[in-house]
Amino acid sequence: MKTRAAVLYGTNQPFQIEEIELDDPKEGEVLVHLVASGLCHSDWHLVTGDLPVNYPIVAGHEGAGVVEKVGPGVTAVKPGDHVILTFIPSCGRCRWCSSGLTMLCDLGAGILQGQQLDGTYRMRNKDGQGLGQMCLISTFSEWTVCPVASVVPISKDLPLDKVCLVGCGVPTGFGAAINRADVQPGETVAIFGIGGVGINAVQGAAVKGAAKVIAVDLVDFKLEMAEEMGATHTINNSREDPVARILELTNGIGADKTIVTIDVVQPEHIGMAYKATRKAGRTVVVGLAPVGVDRMDVPPLDLVLMQKEIVGSLYGNSNPRADLPRYLELYRTGTLKVDELITKTYTLDQINEGYQDMLEGRNIRGVIRYQ
Amino acid sequence: MKTRAAVLYGTNQPFQIEEIELDDPKEGEVLVHLVASGLCHSDWHLVTGDLPVNYPIVAGHEGAGVVEKVGPGVTAVKPGDHVILTFIPSCGRCRWCSSGLTMLCDLGAGILQGQQLDGTYRMRNKDGQGLGQMCLISTFSEWTVCPVASVVPISKDLPLDKVCLVGCGVPTGFGAAINRADVQPGETVAIFGIGGVGINAVQGAAVKGAAKVIAVDLVDFKLEMAEEMGATHTINNSREDPVARILELTNGIGADKTIVTIDVVQPEHIGMAYKATRKAGRTVVVGLAPVGVDRMDVPPLDLVLMQKEIVGSLYGNSNPRADLPRYLELYRTGTLKVDELITKTYTLDQINEGYQDMLEGRNIRGVIRYQ
Repeated sequence: MKTRAAVLYGTNQPFQIEEIELDDPKEGEVLVHLVASGLCHSDWHLVTGDLPVNYPIVAGHEGAGVVEKVGPGVTAVKPGDHVILTFIPSCGRCRWCSSGLTMLCDLGAGILQGQQLDGTYRMRNKDGQGLGQMCLISTFSEWTVCPVASVVPISKDLPLDKVCLVGCGVPTGFGAAINRADVQPGETVAIFGIGGVGINAVQGAAVKGAAKVIAVDLVDFKLEMAEEMGATHTINNSREDPVARILELTNGIGADKTIVTIDVVQPEHIGMAYKATRKAGRTVVVGLAPVGVDRMDVPPLDLVLMQKEIVGSLYGNSNPRADLPRYLELYRTGTLKVDELITKTYTLDQINEGYQDMLEGRNIRGVIRYQ
Repeated sequence: MKTRAAVLYGTNQPFQIEEIELDDPKEGEVLVHLVASGLCHSDWHLVTGDLPVNYPIVAGHEGAGVVEKVGPGVTAVKPGDHVILTFIPSCGRCRWCSSGLTMLCDLGAGILQGQQLDGTYRMRNKDGQGLGQMCLISTFSEWTVCPVASVVPISKDLPLDKVCLVGCGVPTGFGAAINRADVQPGETVAIFGIGGVGINAVQGAAVKGAAKVIAVDLVDFKLEMAEEMGATHTINNSREDPVARILELTNGIGADKTIVTIDVVQPEHIGMAYKATRKAGRTVVVGLAPVGVDRMDVPPLDLVLMQKEIVGSLYGNSNPRADLPRYLELYRTGTLKVDELITKTYTLDQINEGYQDMLEGRNIRGVIRYQ
């Protein structure tokens, strides 16, 4: 069949909207009709080359839609099912899936290579060239084929054009706070970088009962949004030193937990969060650093003497099949805000405009609507 | 009273053995007659200037002895009690002591400044100049005065000339494995640096039931000792790449836990251990880096995608009063070897020779015997 998709032919080029060929789902795969896809910064890393992928590639890794057709052997979902696409598949059988770490499933090892799990392409351009699929799912396409391991069925009453964000930004930020930072009631939590991920870390810290939720960003409108989502204090670090301010807010002790949700993480960002963290506290790194950045600005002597922790968090340490439904329950109750995070919607043809808005700090999250 | 002590007057100078003046214990302090003191590498950091202290200073922070006299208000110990001196005091009342983190007691903030907790000196040289005390305790002295918060009373049947190592090296290494790395039965643990600390991390990993305990060092005799203490594999990294070998031993997955007990930690040592650690695994940093080293060679993108952890460990996350008695019970049963770690004993006058032996890799631990 044919579908329209946003293709990247190399770094530092705009997304090209093309009509492409899409194969039928093979064994263990499903065809999904996308309803919406979030414009996450990680896809922009494909434009800049900060994430190591092969080109050409159809980007997009945060989406939701309806299963149209299933390939041989697929029993977990059926046509008509509503699904959130997950940027990491989970096989359910490997060492990691078997120990509550499905976000580290061995199937995930090849998700930046482009081909499907069997090493072949499902997408092709008009010249017959195989097109890689970002995280196997390519949500910047009206239709996509992906492994059944990459979809989580959800209840049909949930608005797919909103909960598409639960494919990446929501669990990555919310989970970083509730799981990886393991915020405790009364603690002080500082979140560095308030975008489509950081805003959910703010929500997660608030849900777990943090007494002080400190949001740090360069853009005032994002800090205002953070306040609406549970931040008790905001710091615009274009005007104020966040480390000094956080120490002041904590009697010189530092935040119990710090979370780095900056879009393009650099060594000094981790160093900044680290310095704002208390003895025996934890710095959670969530945002992606460019490939090739090979250090963190953290003094090892202090790490030992202060017994601190620096930990990475993928998908907010969420197990998609177990945890996404839980987060969606909180969305239903109104505790976890999702609709409010969507600053603007775009058509697929407007994708470059959408990313421009993101880069200029105008969006918490932009969303492409297909239907 | 008078005592003989090893004084450092500045960096890159030998220890000077002098007869010095020692004041009586003030309120909350005790006078201890030292029996033995270990030659830990951390005191050598005072010679090189890698630890920021004020000079002159009487070094030594790993010792055991007998309480001779107590100052006003001291009730926790009495003359005649046998004690291990701890390099971090614990007040029992601060936020950290109150939450099972006595190794981070607020009293510890000033232990490198030299003066006692009240800001005055107990030790003075023949010119009347105040002498700082390393970690408040100065175990390179026949007699010392220190806070009662810095001593742990132990049973009188334990040999003080051996269990002096339980003041620092034993808990720091053993605890790093059993507490901070939290080794689980069947896991693979790699320990980088087999000295008086690393050898105890080997023991800790073995006691917790690790299936593979991999010891890495440059000195064959230390690796042989590691095998006697529970290492199942050894790597001499002057001849073999430890990362490649550890990956080979773990089917390309990496060790579950890695522990960095190198004497002078550099950014690349942490990077090496990090690379040898599996997805969602933990790298525990124990050895001290020189002050001023401000980075770790760990790629932040990988930290997130592999969801790894890098954590500091002070005193092996041991609470001296709670955990030292526990470790000593294992010493009694023969599970935790301590006597075997003492390669050679010295008189106080031989201290420079003892450190030379350490630097040349001849000792697991050298010990000064005073009595």
